[in-house]
Amino acid sequence: MIGAGECGAHVRALAEQLGAEIGKRGMILVCGGMGGVMEAAACGARNAGGLTVGILPHYDGASANRWLDVVIPTGFGHGRNVIVAASGDAVIALPGEYGTASEIALALKLGRCVIALQAWGDHPGVLHARSAREAVDLALSRLQMG
Amino acid sequence: MIGAGECGAHVRALAEQLGAEIGKRGMILVCGGMGGVMEAAACGARNAGGLTVGILPHYDGASANRWLDVVIPTGFGHGRNVIVAASGDAVIALPGEYGTASEIALALKLGRCVIALQAWGDHPGVLHARSAREAVDLALSRLQMG
Amino acid sequence: MIGAGECGAHVRALAEQLGAEIGKRGMILVCGGMGGVMEAAACGARNAGGLTVGILPHYDGASANRWLDVVIPTGFGHGRNVIVAASGDAVIALPGEYGTASEIALALKLGRCVIALQAWGDHPGVLHARSAREAVDLALSRLQMG
Amino acid sequence: MIGAGECGAHVRALAEQLGAEIGKRGMILVCGGMGGVMEAAACGARNAGGLTVGILPHYDGASANRWLDVVIPTGFGHGRNVIVAASGDAVIALPGEYGTASEIALALKLGRCVIALQAWGDHPGVLHARSAREAVDLALSRLQMG
Repeated sequence: MIGAGECGAHVRALAEQLGAEIGKRGMILVCGGMGGVMEAAACGARNAGGLTVGILPHYDGASANRWLDVVIPTGFGHGRNVIVAASGDAVIALPGEYGTASEIALALKLGRCVIALQAWGDHPGVLHARSAREAVDLALSRLQMG
Repeated sequence: MIGAGECGAHVRALAEQLGAEIGKRGMILVCGGMGGVMEAAACGARNAGGLTVGILPHYDGASANRWLDVVIPTGFGHGRNVIVAASGDAVIALPGEYGTASEIALALKLGRCVIALQAWGDHPGVLHARSAREAVDLALSRLQMG
Repeated sequence: MIGAGECGAHVRALAEQLGAEIGKRGMILVCGGMGGVMEAAACGARNAGGLTVGILPHYDGASANRWLDVVIPTGFGHGRNVIVAASGDAVIALPGEYGTASEIALALKLGRCVIALQAWGDHPGVLHARSAREAVDLALSRLQMG
Repeated sequence: MIGAGECGAHVRALAEQLGAEIGKRGMILVCGGMGGVMEAAACGARNAGGLTVGILPHYDGASANRWLDVVIPTGFGHGRNVIVAASGDAVIALPGEYGTASEIALALKLGRCVIALQAWGDHPGVLHARSAREAVDLALSRLQMG
């Protein structure tokens, strides 16, 4: 999942619901490992019993949020966005800014299914979901279609 | 400069004009080193006496177009898009697809000035130019403003 | 852990013992995700109840060995060696060739503790262990020293 | 060329001679763009009329030495070592530490010819030269052999 490193209460709640939905179904949550929606989603997934992975831009694992089971400190700066985009079988995007936009574009370039959750309304190539549950259902149905 | 690896005659001519405009003014053209607009722009810049640099996704320099003075074979796949975006003092975007969209987002994230040339009409954060000359003038005026 | 993508029966058994030792103690095994010692170590760790992570050079998760819980397909080619080196709190090296040598050098550059297991005899900066158990004990004691 | 970011007067002079030898023959010098042997070699090459390229670990071109014609700010940290290693048709190594050792290993992994200049005496896979001239002669003869 991808989205902004800073966010308000509504988006934070949405991210936590998304994480919980992923965790409940026994899927692995991969994110950028920092704060904002990444932290909220990892918290939701961990509390729902899911496995969480954070791919950091730095070499220092201390910058990771505290809900991660696996921390990958890459040192690649924004280059880690490529890895986050490539690591998801499906990519679910919450609201974000240029960093998230780059991950959406890279995921689409790599042929990944990209689902926007209450965000990215006019972005070509992106599917849309209104709730966390709908987003994960959509991801699963697309992955089963192969 | 960034843009698609395949393009029609109109965009190709525009890319060559852009390269020529950059080369004439003694600036360095940095691009992704492959075909399409990258090849046309490098051809235009080289023929106008400019220095041309191509940053390749592969390890094999043989995939580079033949108008490059400096070939950087990175082996980083789409990760090289980050380097292309970071390498320009200003980034001029011709029409492209997801790869170009990722470079625009990464350049904006890095605080680079991004100028779209007859393209990317509804992209937030991007300046617009109608001709190659206007694009380069705009880039220079922004760089002088610091 | 790091080591060659192809290996003989003795090194394979050693890698599996190393994985088992890591898995038994509830630690996470991070490796390059391919064959040879990476596959043997992941197999050993998984069978001992450990969590296994593979950081691949390709975009295609299909090249991963089948003992991985988390697959990170980077598309970074040998650039993924940097991430493997950075991801370990300690790095344990089995016999390998130039790829493994680059990971040892990068891990030392990043200040990681590097322990060679029946290998890399004359490599400066590397600690040495004769058995899988001794290697993991050494890693843990160094990490506790901080 | 590769080598340490800090060095004494003897190695600095050797690096400058190497740069001059490369520049005189109309070859392009690619280096890591920072200080020490990178700066000395770039200075030598530039003063001999050669073209100089620096591939930086940071996003900020301001960290580059002042003898570079082309600055590539990657933001990839030590990941830029892979690009430096891949960018040379031949790689000439001066004295250095773990960073240089990683570049030697990566260059050998990529099948590049690696020539050590008064350094890396016991490193497998590396050719040896006693003078800057001998190093460049050796590189050229190997490249002609294909």
